[in-house]
Amino acid sequence: MILRHLLLPEILELLHTGRLNELRTFIIQQPAPEIAELLTAITDKDRVLLFRVLPRHLADEVFSLLEPLFQNRLIEELAQEEVRQVLAALPPDDRTALFEELPARVTQRLLGLLSEQDRKKALALLSYPEDSVGRLMTDRYVTVRPEWSVSQALDHLRKTGFDSETMAMIYIIDENERLTDELRLRKLLLADPSARISDLLDGHFACLRSLQDREEAVQVFRKYDLYALPVVDADGILMGIVTIDDILDVAEEEATEDFHKLATVQPLNVSLKNATLGLLFRKRIGWLLGLVVVNIFTGMGIKMFEGTIAKLAALVALLPLLLGSGGNAGAQAATLVVRAIATGEIGSGDWWRLFLREIGVSLCIGLVMAAAAFLLGWLLGSVQVALIVAISMVSIVVVGSLTGIVLPMALNRFDLDPATASVPLITSVADILGVLIYFSIATLILYT
Amino acid sequence: MILRHLLLPEILELLHTGRLNELRTFIIQQPAPEIAELLTAITDKDRVLLFRVLPRHLADEVFSLLEPLFQNRLIEELAQEEVRQVLAALPPDDRTALFEELPARVTQRLLGLLSEQDRKKALALLSYPEDSVGRLMTDRYVTVRPEWSVSQALDHLRKTGFDSETMAMIYIIDENERLTDELRLRKLLLADPSARISDLLDGHFACLRSLQDREEAVQVFRKYDLYALPVVDADGILMGIVTIDDILDVAEEEATEDFHKLATVQPLNVSLKNATLGLLFRKRIGWLLGLVVVNIFTGMGIKMFEGTIAKLAALVALLPLLLGSGGNAGAQAATLVVRAIATGEIGSGDWWRLFLREIGVSLCIGLVMAAAAFLLGWLLGSVQVALIVAISMVSIVVVGSLTGIVLPMALNRFDLDPATASVPLITSVADILGVLIYFSIATLILYT
Repeated sequence: MILRHLLLPEILELLHTGRLNELRTFIIQQPAPEIAELLTAITDKDRVLLFRVLPRHLADEVFSLLEPLFQNRLIEELAQEEVRQVLAALPPDDRTALFEELPARVTQRLLGLLSEQDRKKALALLSYPEDSVGRLMTDRYVTVRPEWSVSQALDHLRKTGFDSETMAMIYIIDENERLTDELRLRKLLLADPSARISDLLDGHFACLRSLQDREEAVQVFRKYDLYALPVVDADGILMGIVTIDDILDVAEEEATEDFHKLATVQPLNVSLKNATLGLLFRKRIGWLLGLVVVNIFTGMGIKMFEGTIAKLAALVALLPLLLGSGGNAGAQAATLVVRAIATGEIGSGDWWRLFLREIGVSLCIGLVMAAAAFLLGWLLGSVQVALIVAISMVSIVVVGSLTGIVLPMALNRFDLDPATASVPLITSVADILGVLIYFSIATLILYT
Repeated sequence: MILRHLLLPEILELLHTGRLNELRTFIIQQPAPEIAELLTAITDKDRVLLFRVLPRHLADEVFSLLEPLFQNRLIEELAQEEVRQVLAALPPDDRTALFEELPARVTQRLLGLLSEQDRKKALALLSYPEDSVGRLMTDRYVTVRPEWSVSQALDHLRKTGFDSETMAMIYIIDENERLTDELRLRKLLLADPSARISDLLDGHFACLRSLQDREEAVQVFRKYDLYALPVVDADGILMGIVTIDDILDVAEEEATEDFHKLATVQPLNVSLKNATLGLLFRKRIGWLLGLVVVNIFTGMGIKMFEGTIAKLAALVALLPLLLGSGGNAGAQAATLVVRAIATGEIGSGDWWRLFLREIGVSLCIGLVMAAAAFLLGWLLGSVQVALIVAISMVSIVVVGSLTGIVLPMALNRFDLDPATASVPLITSVADILGVLIYFSIATLILYT
């Protein structure tokens, strides 16, 4: 933050006047996350210039901290040899995230720049479906065998290097590389060096499956309070680990996606700040147009009741209130259910109870709203209008709320994303039903 | 998952038939997170019985894994001495989370059960404002002094115990306990034992402030990719650390709160599954009633144009389409902005550019929507109606979108929560403006 706001002009001046040694001396004293943030705030041309000033190890660290969008832009400007170096230094999980964002053609070219071993690793990770746990895996973990002694295991650890964050847990595999247990590093360090690893084990371990949805991984991490979890394939073979810092990113990205879906915005995949006008248009227009079609039915519904409207024009003045209230109550119910499904709070066993409770909640809400609507109907119309509006309000709020709760549940039951039951969709469905309810009740009261 | 779904009946049978030794033998083989999940799926009475079967260390671990709601219910049923034991074993940050959920009276009673030292610690943590970083702090960290040698530091580490996850980073403090630097454990372990700590330091460290909003902490963790961050007070004195597993919970909770606010549901603070009918009613009715008041203006707007409506009744059939479209476009814009503010993607420097871009985006969307509306107007009315509807559509979509973008920005500018610019509020404001625009354009075209 300091760099970006206070020193940006000075840094750019050093850069533009070619005083690169001075710039390098200054910049290597700055923490890498600050430099990364700085790189997102300058032009594409300046970004390359500044990136080239960084010493190799710092450049690698800064690159790994950049969002894929900016990694991509930087790669476009760098020479082939520079790209090769930067890619080689990128951890496997960050590499997958970058490749995901690139057009297939560019990914192919970049894969060609990797070493044989790295290419194989990258292709293996990319072979997992998008949004699966497999795509998040990294290989900074240590495995030991149960028949080893503690001192053997410690030797092995020293040889494989030591990453104090991801190696807080050691994984135990059998001769077929199947994950059979996990062991806290602390327990290993405190154990008698001559003891067998198998004596330290308890047979419990938490793990993720490589094909599992990454959104589920967030809930598994929250349940176990661990900083890394091992990932196994369908045969139980250990494929890699997922670390909690990536899971925090997943949680934020998945929440953002759900927010946008609830408001019928298709996933942007870039930050709002960097979205172009054209992208925003394409991501927003689809559903809006689709909902116009739904409105054909609302319009036809109203036309069916033209006689009633002509007889009592004041009814029209209260139409937005009724439709709005039904939609709002439905939006509340839908949002509660969509978020609860996403966080794993509720499952298919809870549907029935939630549905019954919603009938109760929406009836209470509807009755209070009806009292308010009665006053408003009286104010803008007559006692007769007030009565029509009040009765309609209860029915519309209950129907809207139940639509809001049933639609996401049904989508989830058919393995579709419950967030597709967006607020505008609920509102539009509630509109059709609301119009029919309102004018039917009005017709009934007016003509009897 | 296995426990809850497959073994629940067997466990309950052992419990109810009093075969407690058999039950204990079975249950101690299960991982603590599974037992914790199991405890949330059974009745209050069974929960206490099963909890009492657990051996002490397992009971403590299971208790710390429970949601505060269930911790609270368990505490209500346990004897005073049991509560004392469980509380003593709870980490300071989990204790704060539990106390936050309890009525002040119960918190007072529980504080009385703590040791003098724990009580002081708990009171200090509770003195931080709700939703501040201070409330998340724990004390599982190690500090060393810069003038110490590496071997002195390692001795100190051995003495203070070793938690391999939170001690991946060691903190450096000066004689006034001010945080001056941080040091990776890995670097310390690999250093020459006779070297001075100060020789290993680079003067960079990331930290949180104790009074900072906890939502901001999520973004700091994402920026630095660390598993724990130190927390300092206004004088730079090290007060504690915050760990990433708590930050993952904060990210999920804050997202849930924003989801609910966007749909005008006040924060529930319990999971949807455990919310009572009364609670849901109270959290949902307020805003719905408030929006009725907003609808007075929509109704009055329509009444102003009763002459126009009488002259061309088909206009009413298209009212829901226009109001709906304006509201939907506004909901999209508002949701994009609210989420981007929450994730720190955009700041006050970006307002002007976002506003101008939204004018462009909403004009494009409005024109496409107008084409669709023209067809629908023709279908349900006449060419004249179609023309009125098309022109209104462009204006209403632009006005709705700009309302959606300006309202959360303005709230944020005045340090209010941007998520208060909920979808129903945007929709209601767009309704009023939409009615005035639609019928004004209609009057203008009809009477000229």
